Amino acid sequence: MNKIQRVLIVGGTHGNELTGVYLVQRFEQQPHLVQRPSFDTRTLLSNQAAIAAGVRYVDQDMNRCCDRQSLATPTPAAYEVARAQEISRHFGTTGSTPADVILDLHSTTANMGLTLILDDHHPFKLQLAAALSAQQPALRVYSSANSGRQQDALRSLGRFGFCLEVGPVAQGVLEADLFHRTEALVLQTLDYLDRLNQDTPTTAPHPLTLYQYLGTVPYPKDSKGRLQAMIHPQLQGQDYQPLHPGDPMFLSLTGETIAYAGEDPVFPVFINEAAYYEKDIAMVLTRPQQIEVETWVEPESEARTCR
Amino acid sequence: MNKIQRVLIVGGTHGNELTGVYLVQRFEQQPHLVQRPSFDTRTLLSNQAAIAAGVRYVDQDMNRCCDRQSLATPTPAAYEVARAQEISRHFGTTGSTPADVILDLHSTTANMGLTLILDDHHPFKLQLAAALSAQQPALRVYSSANSGRQQDALRSLGRFGFCLEVGPVAQGVLEADLFHRTEALVLQTLDYLDRLNQDTPTTAPHPLTLYQYLGTVPYPKDSKGRLQAMIHPQLQGQDYQPLHPGDPMFLSLTGETIAYAGEDPVFPVFINEAAYYEKDIAMVLTRPQQIEVETWVEPESEARTCR
Repeated sequence: MNKIQRVLIVGGTHGNELTGVYLVQRFEQQPHLVQRPSFDTRTLLSNQAAIAAGVRYVDQDMNRCCDRQSLATPTPAAYEVARAQEISRHFGTTGSTPADVILDLHSTTANMGLTLILDDHHPFKLQLAAALSAQQPALRVYSSANSGRQQDALRSLGRFGFCLEVGPVAQGVLEADLFHRTEALVLQTLDYLDRLNQDTPTTAPHPLTLYQYLGTVPYPKDSKGRLQAMIHPQLQGQDYQPLHPGDPMFLSLTGETIAYAGEDPVFPVFINEAAYYEKDIAMVLTRPQQIEVETWVEPESEARTCR
Repeated sequence: MNKIQRVLIVGGTHGNELTGVYLVQRFEQQPHLVQRPSFDTRTLLSNQAAIAAGVRYVDQDMNRCCDRQSLATPTPAAYEVARAQEISRHFGTTGSTPADVILDLHSTTANMGLTLILDDHHPFKLQLAAALSAQQPALRVYSSANSGRQQDALRSLGRFGFCLEVGPVAQGVLEADLFHRTEALVLQTLDYLDRLNQDTPTTAPHPLTLYQYLGTVPYPKDSKGRLQAMIHPQLQGQDYQPLHPGDPMFLSLTGETIAYAGEDPVFPVFINEAAYYEKDIAMVLTRPQQIEVETWVEPESEARTCR
């Protein structure tokens, strides 16, 4: 595999997720923190209008408009599409300063701790995930590969896109502890990429737990589309914990418990994420899979495989 | 004092504070919960456009535009001012169905638990606060009477305005446990008002702790107005706890601790409230004062006093 030449750290793809916004500001004020000998590190506040307005997005979700069709729109009306095109011209795979790795910093109101999101199972991504997991046992790795979602996230503009999703933290709030834990993870990621570039094997064979997308669960609603239930208090904050058939899932506004009716245990994430109310997603169901990621041993080949 | 004839329960004055929005929806679906023999109970979703959009406000903060001047504006441009005028025409003191008590349901990202906010120290308000405190030891009572803020909150439209401020909960999130605790407090308030109307003495002399407004603290910023520090992790979530001279207050993005430089202990509230970033308020400082609220004994007079 070709070496990593440029890493782009992005904050503010959602303008009210302040952890990423202020981490990028910090890195811009103290660039030595993110500079590494073997590659060029850039930082970017992506959705500047949304950041200024303190909202998730101005016209449309920037993390859903980086697909080919949007990028090919001649005169986009939506601010975010225009901005995606601009970012693609710079950091896209055919851009002026293409990013090999995009690390997009997000936060969630769900209790997801430190989560690394992969959109596919490219060996390089699994390798990075395994290496970070070995260093940060609290790190969870979520894979959206089975979701059927097209490549429309901002991170998809780069050769290898990663998302850091950290929580719980309210939209519009900067929370110091999570800020520092996220910063540490970003710096560990850069260190890993630097070691990889310098041909130093960095991980032993490592078991990696991938929480793989199974589906989403909508909120119970009435015929007028009004919310009729909320996340059950027993499920609130229980991201990545098993939900068994019959376990409480929702509590209706009138006090009835609605149980999980599936046949197999699932592991919900994004439980009660504020931004997903409008997408009618109460939670995302996953199932963990243990895989073994082989030690990276042949720097110039694609020898890293997943079995 | 004249009896309470009408109580108005309001949700959604800030459209992204869902606890109040869905409590009002629940009360509208099950009106027997809030009906009491001795008065008329009404419910209202105040900022309907903001609720629909999932934002705090559309044009301007509805909880700052119920002042006399706004209410007298002939053709208001802002949605919230027009809506405030409409609500005033119905529930204002000279409206068609005036509300004696307005209970406005708010939420905060700060760790304020269940907080009752008073804007002045009218004996009736202190009496209610003392009665609720006796039933709910976890209830805190915050007084904004010294803040110099004019009467511009939605609750100021009624004869007696109260605000319930509950947290921590993210904007745009409905959290079941806090929902139920808020509901219980609303129902206790209605029960108290009903007993008061029926001339049944309800409280013994009760010591009431009032957390009184001292001032606000802005965020440290650079010359361009950019945030340079966040709430110190040792202060995060410590609402209503004493902050002593020299205690950590902020942590700069570059890692320096900024200590509280005052001479006396203070008790911060609204610590890291998302909606106050735009108001440049990192926290509100208070000082608790113990007062004794006399037992309510003479139903037709204003005999309740505070000493």
